[in-house]
Amino acid sequence: MTTLEQTVAAIRPADPEALAEARAHQDRLTKPRGALGALEEVAVRLAGAAAVSPPPLPVPAALAIFAADHGVHAQGVTPWPQEVTLQMVGNFLAGGAVANAFAAQVGASVTVVDVGVAADLAPAPGLTISKVAHGTADLSLGPAMTTAQAVAALETGIAVARDLVDQGARCLITGDMGIANTTASAALICAFTGEDAAVVTGRGTGVDDETLARKVEVVRRALRVNALDTAANRGNPEAEGAEPGGEDVPGGASEAGSGLSALETLAAVGGLEHAAIAGFILGGAALRVPVILDGVIAGSAALAAAALAPDVADHCVAGHRSAEPGHAVALDHLGLRPLVELELRLGEGTGGLLAHPLVCAAVRVMHEVATFDSAGVTDKEA
Amino acid sequence: MTTLEQTVAAIRPADPEALAEARAHQDRLTKPRGALGALEEVAVRLAGAAAVSPPPLPVPAALAIFAADHGVHAQGVTPWPQEVTLQMVGNFLAGGAVANAFAAQVGASVTVVDVGVAADLAPAPGLTISKVAHGTADLSLGPAMTTAQAVAALETGIAVARDLVDQGARCLITGDMGIANTTASAALICAFTGEDAAVVTGRGTGVDDETLARKVEVVRRALRVNALDTAANRGNPEAEGAEPGGEDVPGGASEAGSGLSALETLAAVGGLEHAAIAGFILGGAALRVPVILDGVIAGSAALAAAALAPDVADHCVAGHRSAEPGHAVALDHLGLRPLVELELRLGEGTGGLLAHPLVCAAVRVMHEVATFDSAGVTDKEA
Repeated sequence: MTTLEQTVAAIRPADPEALAEARAHQDRLTKPRGALGALEEVAVRLAGAAAVSPPPLPVPAALAIFAADHGVHAQGVTPWPQEVTLQMVGNFLAGGAVANAFAAQVGASVTVVDVGVAADLAPAPGLTISKVAHGTADLSLGPAMTTAQAVAALETGIAVARDLVDQGARCLITGDMGIANTTASAALICAFTGEDAAVVTGRGTGVDDETLARKVEVVRRALRVNALDTAANRGNPEAEGAEPGGEDVPGGASEAGSGLSALETLAAVGGLEHAAIAGFILGGAALRVPVILDGVIAGSAALAAAALAPDVADHCVAGHRSAEPGHAVALDHLGLRPLVELELRLGEGTGGLLAHPLVCAAVRVMHEVATFDSAGVTDKEA
Repeated sequence: MTTLEQTVAAIRPADPEALAEARAHQDRLTKPRGALGALEEVAVRLAGAAAVSPPPLPVPAALAIFAADHGVHAQGVTPWPQEVTLQMVGNFLAGGAVANAFAAQVGASVTVVDVGVAADLAPAPGLTISKVAHGTADLSLGPAMTTAQAVAALETGIAVARDLVDQGARCLITGDMGIANTTASAALICAFTGEDAAVVTGRGTGVDDETLARKVEVVRRALRVNALDTAANRGNPEAEGAEPGGEDVPGGASEAGSGLSALETLAAVGGLEHAAIAGFILGGAALRVPVILDGVIAGSAALAAAALAPDVADHCVAGHRSAEPGHAVALDHLGLRPLVELELRLGEGTGGLLAHPLVCAAVRVMHEVATFDSAGVTDKEA
């Protein structure tokens, strides 16, 4: 088997006994039942993923920022020059980006992975060079990647996850850098959920109305050119409310009613960093190390990962919900509830990093809080 | 002047120059403008409060949990026995509560303050005994406190804030423990905003429909008995949409159209811990140390603090929005946006503690992130 096949085969669903034990434990703790709201479910979720209750504390955490460029940049989908991808890699390595400040705040390590930057990078501490290509091809003209490139990027992500866990990481956080990558994310979300491009496509890091309209058209064209256009994107009114097909399709089968496999879909409209992040998520899940997803790039990559290995979502926590409209669509499809909702639209892993202390707090409760019995606190009247 | 008067007089509004400088600095940093969403405003807010940009990092943080009992417990507004207040104080001191686990997670100290527990407590490390009374009187039968008791509790909160800042705290987090205290909070929120009791009153730590209906009636009665019932609570349909009066009234003047002063209003329907938390907020603001508010107890106490000193909200950050409906009403009235929204309904300071790493991250960006110029990153096309 290939590394990708081995990894997919190793992923198990949440353990039902650990889930049940975690829920029962929550109800014994000295707090009103359910009083920690969504955080209780996070702790239960991590117990299921780890197959043990209480689950291990998710520390230390490791952020991996996968950087790559996009052929679709040529279509004018963003006001940012492509060289900003390279410049921001330099900023990450120098410790000057928001992701560095947030990582320092939560005690996470930062690894930058060149999986497809359009320029050649010099080796540097903290940089892993695993370049699959100098950026993708233009997804609005044909497949962004060959399936071989997509597999190479997926396996890069798997390798990075394995290395970080080998080095002691007990929580993985996804990060990305790639000018124009919200366009690829929108196309992936449409392809995997069947949703309309006009609903899914957003302003990314801040495009004006004209650019947004062009971006929607570019996404529609990408879907059409790559034979991924579902009814919603052909303007068929009967398609409204139609069930997206992705979630009921076994890994590798056609997505949202197209004839393409999950891998072919990812290759057609994804970015190299999307494929690497999908691999990173699969790699963490295979090792039962929880993965905190960042924003819309991670959400769209997670859709690809879930199409390859349906149980992978049991190992993911949605760090935040970004301002990008497709992100909510992706999270709904994955059945994930975001922890932080502050209209971030930065990427880099910033939203995932912000969520890490919340996840730690949720798990810490399971380890440290007294039970009604042990603390001699009277439970409420039945 | 009394300690309360001195404290109120020392509170200044946000500094306009620091606000402007902080906003300009945010726009120079290597991120798309506005990409950190609500966190940018948090950093700007703290700069205004501190009158310096960038503002100091809000570390270390100190949580104070103000504990007290409530005469209104006798009205059957909660299924929890009153002795749970005392038992939970023991749990906090033993380190076994959720607040302890969260405080450990974020590196905050924990101080428990007995401002009105119905039983006598033995001295213990981490416990400050400043008991004003053995619980309040029943607010549904008349004033919960005398104004002298309310002032004593306010000054206890001020003293705790001063002591913690003297000991090095650079961020204060409010906490509370008091069985039945969401009833007092609902009454305070109605009194200070003019909102209907049926809108504001919630299930607290989990009451059934019958108890909730009783709780709403108890709140209405409390407002009526204490001459704090506004049109919305007298069932006058013309009152719908009427502007609440609290925010336009100078500190100390009548609230929401009643004839009572802010202090009299707090005394009439507040709890001893509400008064102490109001003082704690005033004390932090007077020292220009930011205060992270926890849930509905803190939100209602902050309404009292803002009625006494209108600029106090400039020094507050809303840590979270709880499941209690009155909390959103209070935050809207204060003009505060909550950082964490996870349906917590625990109190103790847990929501404030969860927000602390987010506030730190927001401020850290101002100190550590490179500018476009310094990092050699190209800004987007205009």
